[in-house]
Parts: sequence; structure tokens; C-alpha cells
Amino acid sequence: MQPVATTARDEDRATSTIVQTLDIIGDRWTLLILRSAFRGVRRFSEIQRDLDIAKNLLADRLSRLVDNDILEKVQYQDRPARYEYHLTAKGRDLSPALVAFMHWGDRWCAGGDAPTTLVHDACGSALEHSVRCPSCKTEVDPTHIRSRENT
Amino acid sequence: MQPVATTARDEDRATSTIVQTLDIIGDRWTLLILRSAFRGVRRFSEIQRDLDIAKNLLADRLSRLVDNDILEKVQYQDRPARYEYHLTAKGRDLSPALVAFMHWGDRWCAGGDAPTTLVHDACGSALEHSVRCPSCKTEVDPTHIRSRENT
Repeated sequence: MQPVATTARDEDRATSTIVQTLDIIGDRWTLLILRSAFRGVRRFSEIQRDLDIAKNLLADRLSRLVDNDILEKVQYQDRPARYEYHLTAKGRDLSPALVAFMHWGDRWCAGGDAPTTLVHDACGSALEHSVRCPSCKTEVDPTHIRSRENT
Repeated sequence: MQPVATTARDEDRATSTIVQTLDIIGDRWTLLILRSAFRGVRRFSEIQRDLDIAKNLLADRLSRLVDNDILEKVQYQDRPARYEYHLTAKGRDLSPALVAFMHWGDRWCAGGDAPTTLVHDACGSALEHSVRCPSCKTEVDPTHIRSRENT
């Protein structure tokens, strides 16, 4: 991205958006819980087993995700009441960011030996993620990304 | 993503990849420093001014980013020696993840009032990011993403 003039106030708001995002999902357990949710693991006991996470930590992270409207509690059993945690629209919208994040980790942290590959269920092809320009219909390299101030 | 059978060992490796990634970039200052780097802000004093970050914190985060081969130190002045911090290939490859992350924050944390928009420098159009299947040439919704074990 190229440098652009922004006022201090706009810059603060931009900073606060990215910091707010990180405050919500920039925690290792939160990210792992979301990865489980995307894989269809939705019940407290299943998530706990899936991640081998302490109950109090899991309860804390789930309630934060519910408070932030990323997961919603859906009751699936009476007496005792039990709940599943489903991704909301806001939560599902994190998918491209998590995919991009996992691709980067696979490429650069797994030493070229990624344990799993994300594929399209319909055809089994490995997925790609990209930043694209809808007008030019091309993939856009980081050096051609510019930040425009919204006035 | 749909649930798939994975062995404990594969699961551990998958977990460790995403946790490693988060260990490297899942810190608010680190992410803000990277955002500055993508905007062409490369010198210690400029980054410090850009972010209003304490010198010791900035020095710590920069040295971690250099140790992790995400930024590289490039000398631009003798006596006294001064350096710029340039993104490496590994660092530039974080661009789609950061774009996805910023788009999500703009959409869901800025209350529909995003302070800036990422645009293509050539034409000024707002950028899109997506997860795509290269075989079917379609955008892939999170419900159609599956994780395949690499044996």
C-alpha cells in the first residue's frame, strides 16, 4: 500500500478498527475455537475434546464470541439445557481471513509440509485466496494496493 | 469446513501451524507495524511517529519481525548507521490475510463507516478478496470448504 495523507482523526479510527478486530479474534484459543466451528464442531464438550482446552478458558472464550455476535447459542436439549455454538453471519464472514491466515502459516511456518489442505467440497481442488480488482478483473499485488480516505 | 477424520498427530501439527502464525503476527503492535510497512513507512522514527509507540516496544517488535524473516534491515545511512525495515517475500505474502482482516473489521467493527477503503492504484476501484476454486472458477462459500489430510 502506498502512503497517503490522512488526518490524525481518520488515522485513529483506522487504527482502532484493526485493533478492535485483533481484540476480538487475535487470541490463540479464540482462533482455534473458530477453526473448530468452521469444521462443524459446535458443542462445549466436543470443542473441549477437540482442542484439549481447560473448561474455564473455553467458557470464557465462548462467552466473548457470543458477546461479540460471532457465535450464537442455540439450545439443542432440555433438562439439562444444553447449547450448541453456531457461527453467525459476522462469524462466517471471517472465513476468508482465516483461510488466508492458514495458507500463510502452511506456506511459511510448516516448512512446505502442510498437514492439511483446504479444498472445494464439490471437486476436491485446493482453494486459492486472492485480492482482486473487480473492474480490471485481475489479481492485485500488494505494491498496487492503495488506501483511500473516505470523507 | 466439514469435519474430517485426522490423526492426533496431524491435528497437533495443524494446531501448531496456526498457533505459530498467531505467535508471530497476533499482536496489536506487530499488526500495526506491518500495516505501516505496507503503506511504505519503513524507518524507525517514521514508524514511531506513525503509531505513537514507545521506542522499546517498537525495537522489540521490529527485532522479532526481523528474526522471523518478515522484515529485513536495510542500511540507508552511514555514521551514524541507520536502517530501514523492508518487507521480505514472506512479509509481503501476508498482504491478502491483512486485507481480509481489515475488510472484516471495516464491515463489522466500524459500524459500516469505514475510515479508509483499499483500492487498486491503477483504476481506483475498491478491492475485493475472496476464496476461490481454480477448477470450478467460482467463489467458494465457507460451507463448501473442506479440509483434506495430506498423507
